[in-house]
Amino acid sequence: MHSNESQILLYLILILIAARAGGEIAVRFRQPAVLGEILAGVALGLIPAIRPAVDQQAIIFIAEIGVILLLFEVGLDSKFDEFKRTGAPAALVAIIGVILPLVIGFGSAILLGYSTNVALFLGGTLTATSIGITARVLSDLNRSKSEEAKIIIGAAVVDDILGILVLSVVVGVGSGIAVRLGGVLLSLGLAIAFLTLALVIGTRMAPFLVGFTRRMKGRGVLAVSAFIFGLLLAYLGSLVNLAAIVGAFAAGLVLASTDDRVKITEGIQPVVDIFAPVFFATVGMRVDLTYLNPTRSESQPFLLLALVLLFIAVPTKLLAGLGAAGRRADKWAIGIGMIPRGEVGLIFASLGRTVGIISEGIYGSIIFVVLATTIITPPLLKYSFSRSRRSGTPQKRLPHHRRD
Amino acid sequence: MHSNESQILLYLILILIAARAGGEIAVRFRQPAVLGEILAGVALGLIPAIRPAVDQQAIIFIAEIGVILLLFEVGLDSKFDEFKRTGAPAALVAIIGVILPLVIGFGSAILLGYSTNVALFLGGTLTATSIGITARVLSDLNRSKSEEAKIIIGAAVVDDILGILVLSVVVGVGSGIAVRLGGVLLSLGLAIAFLTLALVIGTRMAPFLVGFTRRMKGRGVLAVSAFIFGLLLAYLGSLVNLAAIVGAFAAGLVLASTDDRVKITEGIQPVVDIFAPVFFATVGMRVDLTYLNPTRSESQPFLLLALVLLFIAVPTKLLAGLGAAGRRADKWAIGIGMIPRGEVGLIFASLGRTVGIISEGIYGSIIFVVLATTIITPPLLKYSFSRSRRSGTPQKRLPHHRRD
Repeated sequence: MHSNESQILLYLILILIAARAGGEIAVRFRQPAVLGEILAGVALGLIPAIRPAVDQQAIIFIAEIGVILLLFEVGLDSKFDEFKRTGAPAALVAIIGVILPLVIGFGSAILLGYSTNVALFLGGTLTATSIGITARVLSDLNRSKSEEAKIIIGAAVVDDILGILVLSVVVGVGSGIAVRLGGVLLSLGLAIAFLTLALVIGTRMAPFLVGFTRRMKGRGVLAVSAFIFGLLLAYLGSLVNLAAIVGAFAAGLVLASTDDRVKITEGIQPVVDIFAPVFFATVGMRVDLTYLNPTRSESQPFLLLALVLLFIAVPTKLLAGLGAAGRRADKWAIGIGMIPRGEVGLIFASLGRTVGIISEGIYGSIIFVVLATTIITPPLLKYSFSRSRRSGTPQKRLPHHRRD
Repeated sequence: MHSNESQILLYLILILIAARAGGEIAVRFRQPAVLGEILAGVALGLIPAIRPAVDQQAIIFIAEIGVILLLFEVGLDSKFDEFKRTGAPAALVAIIGVILPLVIGFGSAILLGYSTNVALFLGGTLTATSIGITARVLSDLNRSKSEEAKIIIGAAVVDDILGILVLSVVVGVGSGIAVRLGGVLLSLGLAIAFLTLALVIGTRMAPFLVGFTRRMKGRGVLAVSAFIFGLLLAYLGSLVNLAAIVGAFAAGLVLASTDDRVKITEGIQPVVDIFAPVFFATVGMRVDLTYLNPTRSESQPFLLLALVLLFIAVPTKLLAGLGAAGRRADKWAIGIGMIPRGEVGLIFASLGRTVGIISEGIYGSIIFVVLATTIITPPLLKYSFSRSRRSGTPQKRLPHHRRD
């Protein structure tokens, strides 16, 4: 083994141990394991010798596979028909959750003295919803099949489609390129066409696909084929500008309709258990708040911006939960589930920095919001569900979460 | 998702699909799946757009994890006591399998007109044994628990220890550094100490380790902890210059003695099924034989060298199988199992090129031998086992290999 591979192996081992320890401590404090994994990552990131791990392609990629498979598993655990049933409230939650942060974020940035372009970009960044964290918390709390979970995930998919629209417009305007309506509509059409094709045709094709793998020989054919299918839809989704996790979720949803759903889940589960914590720990490791240090005078405007953005980011998504009012579901839990900006927010921020719309300081403020929304969601969601259970909202009481 | 991650995801998908298809075709032709995976990799490597995949850190690392876990699983499937019982023949097989190729390889290279240093290096390279391929073929043929498998794997572990000695001496002499006997003995002592500690103390500690994970909460704790343990011993082994797969094998052997062996295997198996084929396909993708093109006159000496080395590489390891003569095991199958030089040979060759002992042309010849020994082993081993079964050598007839 070459020394570079040895080094990455050591990074991976340390990240896995830290994530496992952090998850364990979180569970002992009655918090979702994912919160402990993120905080363990924050702690690892403070060690200068380990921090470079997050810049290693192999670590980034393994983390990506972890979160792709997590959403694939969430899809496998879902029923397409139920998603169609929750389509209307999910769409309403998504639309409110895009318009409110966009408008209020834009207005506040203008009031703080930022230019129209920057303000538009900041508002756009706040519209993102990343369900990686929420999906994991729901899984930790054994709520993946609840009504709330269905609406949150449905809304996140719609949000991702709307996000393509917002991003195209914001980056188009911000970078001075005239927005080409045709181009925007094309990418929007492609995304919707991909999801439609994947779900409608995929669901009909799935039995044949599974039947095909049944005729193959060799060990673990089903799990390997399902893994390939999940990665393939994640990749195809990313080609039409959807988040890879949305494509993976669609793949899971397609296979959920087959007879081999349980077997596929059994094969994919250990891979998720091993790799998903790497994703959440590396999210934590990316925290670098030196540029928001309040004792440095040059940081203060960005610290102010960060706090204002956070103050907008949380309530606007909470209000989006009202889109599910009247349903037999906890609308506050839905709103909380929409809070994390996660890696969708990070992609937004990186893009803004790359095309030169925002400065390093503003970038730092956005990263702060992304991480803060990510870290506050697990305990809030846990609290919200335990509160709704106490107040007697109908909820199936599930056995203590331990499947292995 | 960034475009670089998208690109790697596409590479991984293509490698997985090719490996699955190749494995499937091989099985239809009654050959071990691994042969099809390697040949599928050779085919992929001919496509200029896909070939760069093998230089991507993420792909290299995922392949490495695949082969590490494969040997970890082989260890899990073994019994330490049985290895102690087969220790004597295994050691004899290993010693013959190191001395013969070293002496004959050295002598032949001298006769071909190479310098003492180069000849010593070429002989040293031929001593390597890589059990990655053999372990996989045995698994494909459902022979992982046979007497032959135990002797081959035991011999490969001893070979790896002897390899440290040979490599230290050869590189020390070859690069003009006076061989420091103390240094060589130290690294040899460290490798033996590591294996002893890992196996003897590890086996006693294992029940406590497993008991510790039983007190942990959260999903998949056992599989995750076992995975970490496997990677950790692979890493520690590489620190004392053992191949990572030897450390991983030791980790599996340690956990094989625990009550949770079956559960651990169930958790690790899907990860092996998904990632190990990536290793074998990328081995095939590295084939680049342009420098051995017989129509180019400057290639001809290297082509001659490659053929001579191959002609030495195969029979010398076959003869090593005689070390197991008198045992209730097929000595030819054992000899064949020792043939592949695999990644241990590749590491030897890379090192020789780096320290400047060998030229690009000689490097190409070594790569040819490594690949040729890798490709011929699966069909030979399969043939050998089917022959010994027909001739009535005692062999448990196992059910057709399909576990999922």
